[in-house]
Amino acid sequence: MSADLYPVSRLAAVQAATARAGLDALLLTPGPDLRYVSGYEALPLERLTCLVVPAAGESFMMVPRLELPAAQASPASRLGVEFVAWDETDDPYTLVADRLGRVARVGLADRMWAMASLRFRAAMPATDQVLAGSVLRELRMRKSAAEVAALREAGAAIDAVHLQVPGLLKAGRTEREVGRDIHDAILAAGHSTVDFVIVASGPNGASPHHEVSDRVIQTGEPVVVDIGGQLHNGYCSDSTRTYCVGEPPAEFAAYYEVLRRAQQAACEAVRPGVTCESVDAAAREVIAEAGYGDYFIHRTGHGIGIETHEEPYIVSGNTELMEPGFAFSVEPGIYLAGRHGARIEDILVCTETGGERLNNTSRELVIV
Amino acid sequence: MSADLYPVSRLAAVQAATARAGLDALLLTPGPDLRYVSGYEALPLERLTCLVVPAAGESFMMVPRLELPAAQASPASRLGVEFVAWDETDDPYTLVADRLGRVARVGLADRMWAMASLRFRAAMPATDQVLAGSVLRELRMRKSAAEVAALREAGAAIDAVHLQVPGLLKAGRTEREVGRDIHDAILAAGHSTVDFVIVASGPNGASPHHEVSDRVIQTGEPVVVDIGGQLHNGYCSDSTRTYCVGEPPAEFAAYYEVLRRAQQAACEAVRPGVTCESVDAAAREVIAEAGYGDYFIHRTGHGIGIETHEEPYIVSGNTELMEPGFAFSVEPGIYLAGRHGARIEDILVCTETGGERLNNTSRELVIV
Repeated sequence: MSADLYPVSRLAAVQAATARAGLDALLLTPGPDLRYVSGYEALPLERLTCLVVPAAGESFMMVPRLELPAAQASPASRLGVEFVAWDETDDPYTLVADRLGRVARVGLADRMWAMASLRFRAAMPATDQVLAGSVLRELRMRKSAAEVAALREAGAAIDAVHLQVPGLLKAGRTEREVGRDIHDAILAAGHSTVDFVIVASGPNGASPHHEVSDRVIQTGEPVVVDIGGQLHNGYCSDSTRTYCVGEPPAEFAAYYEVLRRAQQAACEAVRPGVTCESVDAAAREVIAEAGYGDYFIHRTGHGIGIETHEEPYIVSGNTELMEPGFAFSVEPGIYLAGRHGARIEDILVCTETGGERLNNTSRELVIV
Repeated sequence: MSADLYPVSRLAAVQAATARAGLDALLLTPGPDLRYVSGYEALPLERLTCLVVPAAGESFMMVPRLELPAAQASPASRLGVEFVAWDETDDPYTLVADRLGRVARVGLADRMWAMASLRFRAAMPATDQVLAGSVLRELRMRKSAAEVAALREAGAAIDAVHLQVPGLLKAGRTEREVGRDIHDAILAAGHSTVDFVIVASGPNGASPHHEVSDRVIQTGEPVVVDIGGQLHNGYCSDSTRTYCVGEPPAEFAAYYEVLRRAQQAACEAVRPGVTCESVDAAAREVIAEAGYGDYFIHRTGHGIGIETHEEPYIVSGNTELMEPGFAFSVEPGIYLAGRHGARIEDILVCTETGGERLNNTSRELVIV
């Protein structure tokens, strides 16, 4: 746990942003929003844990008495906020409402369960609920130097796994067998959890969110390998490379080269002041011009940080302007249903001068 | 995946219960409620997946186009409901609202993220939101024979792990080392995930939700071991035993015996028609009479099924009447802060004639 990643000063910045947004308070239950603000990786439970951050005044954290030792041992204890323990027969929602008093508008953690949001609504019927993300997105999208360093570490960790993949991919093995080895390699590379392992061979490669199956990999087949996990410090990795077991079909080799150029074009389009959708368009144009436009069936990317998918999304319609510190994936793909597919994905961070790639293994087609 | 565990007929039962409760529809996003109704273990993502179950008429499932192959390959495909794929630039919340038409009241999956519930509210501003749990609890609490069989299988799996614990607990090892071995044993015993591993030695045993630490276990120390995971079929295990490394302190041995009698009394109190709180009271009375009332600081238990913690809760104030098929933990504890603690936990199912324990390792203090 690096203090720099979850600085104590962040709480004041969040309070100021809450006030600027015209909200009276944020209600942060376990999940990425709570971790971002406090460093506390609380378990999501039916018993309410909630950091209450008012726009002005003292923050406090409502904690089930059973979880009090865990909360006290967590980085949240550095914030100097009061921990209010509630007992098994208390109603913690009413306790929060009573302490907060009459407020017009609160922001709920984006992942707050309905179990909690509807109980807060009942306890505070005159209070509007909006997403805490409307406040926190401005902060979470702009990664600090420490956060960029953590994402760079995550990028290096998943790159180390991709370097092992050619040794694992062999005709005759199943996707699941390869996936199990990759799973172990992700943990061995320093991740605390494995978030996803996609090993999509042959026709499965045409389904972008295929995971693994018992399909046996055949000679001459492209295999899409999209993998990621979370480091102990909370920051996530995510990188895709497409391999081929033996010589690829000629048609595949042709569109793979289009894809490589498209991914390169999107990476080169990154710089402060351009819209997020323009980065999507940069990839899409190359693919469309080559006649594969109908086969690129998803957005170009997603933000990444303490969640694998967070803002900003690199998608048509997102007119948000890039700023230094934005971190996101650039991952165009071409998918021929029933046959094969390809995707190339790097995490990039926007710097003052352009996009810096945090994944650095070869983007040429690797033939194993 | 057993068809009996997630029967296709359940959808009609859920529709009927939705109508009886005066709701117009349930909106079920990924999580236990969706899995219970459809068998589909969908990933929770920022892109909306939602099974819409109207009180009358045809159900449908809104699915991101990327997830369509996964949804089609899932048990949800057996339901015969239409899958409505949405594209990257669509607003799926408006699409659901448009298809559903004007409705007065919907039930949201208990774990629906605020990210979704607030967008549904914006798309359907005149519609009341309540918890889907208000409808589904009646069904989920009453386990079918197939569900009881799955919980029995889970109980046997975690019992097999507890039988290995005496061989792992040794003075000089850390809690974390023991925990890692238990983690592996839980997976080897047939679980697909490890949900929690508590190895709480000496004073850590006095904190009920302690997990593991680098504390070195000493001779003469009690160790609370509370472990559980989820089987591939979705059903969960959870069992606690307290061990002692060498001869226990006399004081500990005395209250352990009180605890054993309390847990036995609570198990014997289980039968159809009694309140859930009376089972809590049965344990609490034994402990209070022996003078340890202030040291039993949590409820006696929680329901269990496809969630480790679900209804019914065995807690003061819960006047729900037990019925055959209710499944829950009975886990009183005694905790002496700064010194040591003990807990004994079995999963029980209520039968026509009383409580059947699904955990069957010895409840005597095991000295290792």
